[in-house]
Amino acid sequence: MSLRAIKYEANTLEILDQLLLPAQSKYVQVKGVEDGWKVINKMQVRGAPAIAIVGCLSLAVELQNGNHDSKKDLRQDIEGKLNYLVSSRPTAVNMKIAADELISLANTLCEDEAVTLETMKSNFISTIEDMLNKDIADNKAIGNYGAQEILSHVPGDNLVRILTHCNTGSLATAGYGTALGVIRRLNELKRLEHVYCTETRPYNQGARLTAYELVHEKIPATLIVDSMVAALMKTRNISAVVVGADRVAGNGDTANKIGTYQIAVLAKYHNVPFYVAAPFTSIDTKILSGDHIVIEERPEHEMTHVGEHRIAAKGIGCWNPAFDVTPANLIAGIITEKGIFRPPEIRKEFFV
Amino acid sequence: MSLRAIKYEANTLEILDQLLLPAQSKYVQVKGVEDGWKVINKMQVRGAPAIAIVGCLSLAVELQNGNHDSKKDLRQDIEGKLNYLVSSRPTAVNMKIAADELISLANTLCEDEAVTLETMKSNFISTIEDMLNKDIADNKAIGNYGAQEILSHVPGDNLVRILTHCNTGSLATAGYGTALGVIRRLNELKRLEHVYCTETRPYNQGARLTAYELVHEKIPATLIVDSMVAALMKTRNISAVVVGADRVAGNGDTANKIGTYQIAVLAKYHNVPFYVAAPFTSIDTKILSGDHIVIEERPEHEMTHVGEHRIAAKGIGCWNPAFDVTPANLIAGIITEKGIFRPPEIRKEFFV
Repeated sequence: MSLRAIKYEANTLEILDQLLLPAQSKYVQVKGVEDGWKVINKMQVRGAPAIAIVGCLSLAVELQNGNHDSKKDLRQDIEGKLNYLVSSRPTAVNMKIAADELISLANTLCEDEAVTLETMKSNFISTIEDMLNKDIADNKAIGNYGAQEILSHVPGDNLVRILTHCNTGSLATAGYGTALGVIRRLNELKRLEHVYCTETRPYNQGARLTAYELVHEKIPATLIVDSMVAALMKTRNISAVVVGADRVAGNGDTANKIGTYQIAVLAKYHNVPFYVAAPFTSIDTKILSGDHIVIEERPEHEMTHVGEHRIAAKGIGCWNPAFDVTPANLIAGIITEKGIFRPPEIRKEFFV
Repeated sequence: MSLRAIKYEANTLEILDQLLLPAQSKYVQVKGVEDGWKVINKMQVRGAPAIAIVGCLSLAVELQNGNHDSKKDLRQDIEGKLNYLVSSRPTAVNMKIAADELISLANTLCEDEAVTLETMKSNFISTIEDMLNKDIADNKAIGNYGAQEILSHVPGDNLVRILTHCNTGSLATAGYGTALGVIRRLNELKRLEHVYCTETRPYNQGARLTAYELVHEKIPATLIVDSMVAALMKTRNISAVVVGADRVAGNGDTANKIGTYQIAVLAKYHNVPFYVAAPFTSIDTKILSGDHIVIEERPEHEMTHVGEHRIAAKGIGCWNPAFDVTPANLIAGIITEKGIFRPPEIRKEFFV
């Protein structure tokens, strides 16, 4: 059973507090949109899909316990609360997209005279619940496609050794994960010998979060620092690299956590196939290539400090790009819930 | 003026306490071999050449203040104290080699009837002082050869941008440094535009020590984490990489701090020349290739903790090799105080 960072059952919502990880594993109850706003704003939940789902589920919980006089009253309540939730982290675009879709749904239901107040409410709530289930189902499909793809290049029943970077698991999605979903699936199939995860400096998502998930699920795993990737590939017979994606351009160029491009170059040199695992919606065919993706630069403090403890010499300047772009020609395949896409033919496939 | 981690003047010795760096810059006085033993044992001084030089200089200070009845008395005192110093860090082979050479010198001087007690003492002390001066002179020669080599590939008076890894400066040698000596020399020649130094996980020698030296000397510098090397090479027009060496095999394969091999692969991919800077004595022609170099694995604690603060999830296993081997075919040149050696022709050059 994969780690559950979002627990939603019988109209109660709890989330694993990521601010306390990996030192403490503590769930926070989310009783309504006010709690939802707080856990998102304080970053107790993070990862674009997870933020949108927690925000919307907090609304579902609140609506189930609320009373409304009319469909119009319900519609107004929904719109106000969704806009409030969007304000919790204005840059998290997934929450905004989900809010727009749900407001549009509320309008449609409100205008349809065949729909009663009760039907409108239950229909609206089940739409939100479907978002949670769809994200998990999509991740499981990604996991399965990815596992089959990797195993198709391995002779007989041989076990595989996988390297991954950053965190793409239950802690970044609704559950199961993308790249970590592929690893989970290989483990379920009893074909995973070992997984190596990078520390992922400067924010240590690998050491803190991926390592936490792997230990929690007893998946055989080893942590390495980011500078050990080449030495690992040279000595440990790695079968494949699988990473996530922030955004995939129409030609297959992929923006992802800083360090991804470097691992792709090292994989090419050592003849290790390099895969990107991401929901189909991450592919943006309107972006022609990675050259059009702007790289966000983050504060120096993330590099110079661990918590309040300064680790770098005082006065040194830092360069801290949050992600980099891996060119399509280094990528063996983009693993989505609709199957594997091979760059650089992605755009062609979409236009067939 | 380069940072002075070892100050030896008018028979007094002080060393910069590396345990306090980069938070505090404090010198510790070394009044004799007992203090010498302590600063080595507590790792207030580190780096193989620096350990040997501080140990021997602590003996020079003590002898200058001591009284001896006879040459035999002096010889016995020297032997006892050198063996005591060797016990401060038994694995630091440079201190043992220096002790053996100095004991042999003491025996020779003792047996030579033409030598008086006073001459024996002053001859012995100046031999130790020469070690300090020779290491600095060798590093300056390395710096100059390296700077000329790098500039010879740059058109006109163009400035250069250099990437380095780990710490190879005043804090690891008698002064000036090897790879950092090349960077210092480029800066003295006003041909250095910028230097980038890697954090060098897991022990952070780059972020703590190299960054400290660069800030101290006002060399234009930027810190990056180890996973940003490829992104840096792709976007910042790096002129050359210069790193140090723990050991160079007869065919040019080079063992150095973990992460060095990875940088060499990335340099090859981005057409950036990759250089190793090391004293001539680091080249061991008895080792035929890098395959014969055993890789030391270090404790997991170095990766999972920063000081007493745990940064990795509890229960995760770690792989922590201290160094890796860069094959000769990725190296543009080995920069020594005797000039530049081009792998893979090193062995041939030595046997001509």
